[in-house]
Amino acid sequence: MQPVDTLILGPLVVTMDAEERIIETGAVAVRDGVIVAVGTRGDLEGVTAAETIDAAGKLLMPGLVNAHTHLGDSLFRSLVEELPLEAWLERLWISEREFVSRERVELGARLSMAEMIRGGTTCALDMFWFPEAAADAALGAGFRLVTGPIFFDFDGPDGLAVERRIAAGERWLERYAAEPLITPCVQPHNALTVSPEGLRAARDLADRAGALFHTHCSETATEVRQTTERFGHTPVAHLDDLGILDDHTVLAHCVHLVDDDFARLRRSGAAVLHNPLSNLKLGSGIAPVARMLEEGIPVAIGTDGPVSSNDLDMWTAMRFAGLLQRGVHMDPVLTPAREVVRMATTVGAEALGLGEVGRLAEGYRADLILIDLARPHLMPMYDVYGHLVYTVGRDDVRSVMVDGRWVMRDRTLETIDEATVLAEMEQLAAEIEHHAASLEPA
Amino acid sequence: MQPVDTLILGPLVVTMDAEERIIETGAVAVRDGVIVAVGTRGDLEGVTAAETIDAAGKLLMPGLVNAHTHLGDSLFRSLVEELPLEAWLERLWISEREFVSRERVELGARLSMAEMIRGGTTCALDMFWFPEAAADAALGAGFRLVTGPIFFDFDGPDGLAVERRIAAGERWLERYAAEPLITPCVQPHNALTVSPEGLRAARDLADRAGALFHTHCSETATEVRQTTERFGHTPVAHLDDLGILDDHTVLAHCVHLVDDDFARLRRSGAAVLHNPLSNLKLGSGIAPVARMLEEGIPVAIGTDGPVSSNDLDMWTAMRFAGLLQRGVHMDPVLTPAREVVRMATTVGAEALGLGEVGRLAEGYRADLILIDLARPHLMPMYDVYGHLVYTVGRDDVRSVMVDGRWVMRDRTLETIDEATVLAEMEQLAAEIEHHAASLEPA
Repeated sequence: MQPVDTLILGPLVVTMDAEERIIETGAVAVRDGVIVAVGTRGDLEGVTAAETIDAAGKLLMPGLVNAHTHLGDSLFRSLVEELPLEAWLERLWISEREFVSRERVELGARLSMAEMIRGGTTCALDMFWFPEAAADAALGAGFRLVTGPIFFDFDGPDGLAVERRIAAGERWLERYAAEPLITPCVQPHNALTVSPEGLRAARDLADRAGALFHTHCSETATEVRQTTERFGHTPVAHLDDLGILDDHTVLAHCVHLVDDDFARLRRSGAAVLHNPLSNLKLGSGIAPVARMLEEGIPVAIGTDGPVSSNDLDMWTAMRFAGLLQRGVHMDPVLTPAREVVRMATTVGAEALGLGEVGRLAEGYRADLILIDLARPHLMPMYDVYGHLVYTVGRDDVRSVMVDGRWVMRDRTLETIDEATVLAEMEQLAAEIEHHAASLEPA
Repeated sequence: MQPVDTLILGPLVVTMDAEERIIETGAVAVRDGVIVAVGTRGDLEGVTAAETIDAAGKLLMPGLVNAHTHLGDSLFRSLVEELPLEAWLERLWISEREFVSRERVELGARLSMAEMIRGGTTCALDMFWFPEAAADAALGAGFRLVTGPIFFDFDGPDGLAVERRIAAGERWLERYAAEPLITPCVQPHNALTVSPEGLRAARDLADRAGALFHTHCSETATEVRQTTERFGHTPVAHLDDLGILDDHTVLAHCVHLVDDDFARLRRSGAAVLHNPLSNLKLGSGIAPVARMLEEGIPVAIGTDGPVSSNDLDMWTAMRFAGLLQRGVHMDPVLTPAREVVRMATTVGAEALGLGEVGRLAEGYRADLILIDLARPHLMPMYDVYGHLVYTVGRDDVRSVMVDGRWVMRDRTLETIDEATVLAEMEQLAAEIEHHAASLEPA
């Protein structure tokens, strides 16, 4: 074999490849950002590499895919607590309107990427104001990001008038089209805040750019009721009748579905982005994930934004996704651990249109994480997938590679100046807190 | 003030005292294992101390109380997956019978205490074979443990015949009566595996020793049905009619309760030990915690054993306890974060009969933890209790003190030889795995 850039020798490899092989004492070789070989240590230890990592006693797996979040919302983490979604959003938007700017969103995105990288997440789908801020933060951090223009039927804190959003979106998509780390996506908020014409225009924009279409759908009972009152059918049926649902569509939440919604989702090939933490915390409900899986609807996992969830910890989101259905249905064989790992890796990547991400297999992009197993809560380990869903946590991740580049090595971030980000955030948080206090009734 | 042993200066102090004060830049002084002063940094910085800790930028709070677990089960972590409780228990008991010994249970308990201390848990209620093994491990580790003799109507892997258990229990309780770190407790398994006479004898034993009474109760629908078939009423009613329920009684689970059960619990003063992780994972259901709290029934939080949950992470257990009810009832103001922190500190300690534990207040035992706040997922922090329930995790805990003694300092365990424990566990795990493989159908 030709010399490679990085050779990782000796870990337990959870490949998530087509056969879902687990290799006890494995090895992975990376060249030019691509995985060029996966095998046993014996297979690969003769390969010449610019850098060889001894990873004995560690677990190597694909990086996690956070399939739905709002990265800039880390600015407001824990600012609004204990309100139902609609009232909560109304209160949050007051602070967003006051503080959101291009520069601050980039700070929030950098903070969020520092958190995600530390926890082994290598890719996220982000919906927030000034998507160029998160995209630029991702390019700086070497983080894989799916994002793009957002749409509302009102002028947002980004100062962009409604009628200018499509043209601005077009320019946005052109601007980032050539960036390998950025996957473009068109994102209207939901069927209540964006008119049918607006949704259709956004869909056309996505089609012209070959971009993913991403929206919130059937998150709360209130949203379903109001959509039904206004349009005569559910949010899923509304989107479907507008010709929006296909396998380039991802729908965040889908907590409240009727039988017909399941049939429409199944037929369309659209994927559901399940966010158990925010659905519980905001009292939205518990999504019927067991039935979605049974019907063959792809389900990926997201953390949602750090103002609703309140963090970006995919391990916790996986644990909730893996356990909730069992309690609700009183059935301990639902959502097996291996299925949950799929949801957070291969299924997530495929749903977001990232065909070469989510597996450790030849030809795939090198997005991978090394997990330390020599910790009291991880010992013993009789079931690898069980460990990944029910026990492993963010701080067990030692090193993280995105697209062939180490973004964290042995717990040190390589691409984000963490101390500066924390210091800047601390300063801004004081202002946000002061403003929030001024809103309280005297 | 007289010189003290330890003075902690500058942290944000979450006291959980009677007024639930939060002190922005606080200080705590400890002498002879007892908290002798809590105040602002200014109040206490003149005090002479053998050791002064600068804890600026950290959060200081009471150690967490894990109110229900089976520590020795860490030997079998992830060994039995995806079975309903009864079948799961049957399978687990095969391995327990093969491998449980006094020495191995002590190894499992040391492993579990290493995990718990690392995660900021300073006290646990443990139910397992050879309770002297866990008690001795706790004395070695400087960990606060509630434990004591267990009862089944069959001979267990401890080789103790049923008819000898009461006398052996009596000796056990005498032996540990004088140990300040050990709080005695009498623990029949449940109302199906222990006869009414056995339950009554255990209760009498607890009363003679002034010990807590701890049992599993109404964990699964099957258990409730079988108890009702055999005795004509629910497990709660059965225990109540046997005169067992009072404020020295703690009942693990209580997932399936009827109206009359609530009334009996309320009248009795018994506390419920809520284990959301194992209840979900084993498909047992979701305990009606919101109603318990509404009716004034004390609810503490446990992780359950690491073979069902699969770890001993109280932060995750708190997050599940804090979020589940909101999803089930679609009500985002249920189980407020402050209430959940109470459940894991003051309420847990009081339920377990530890009157001087669970608060940072003068005269209380010095069981306390220091949490690092300068981490991306903890920045910013607008809501302290929200952070503790929805964001803080086990690895954010930097230092842990139990009864005035540091058991972890800056992430290094002071009382447990972690490397030796992990190495011994690795060796034993190979044997357990080999035996488990021999049980699989060929």
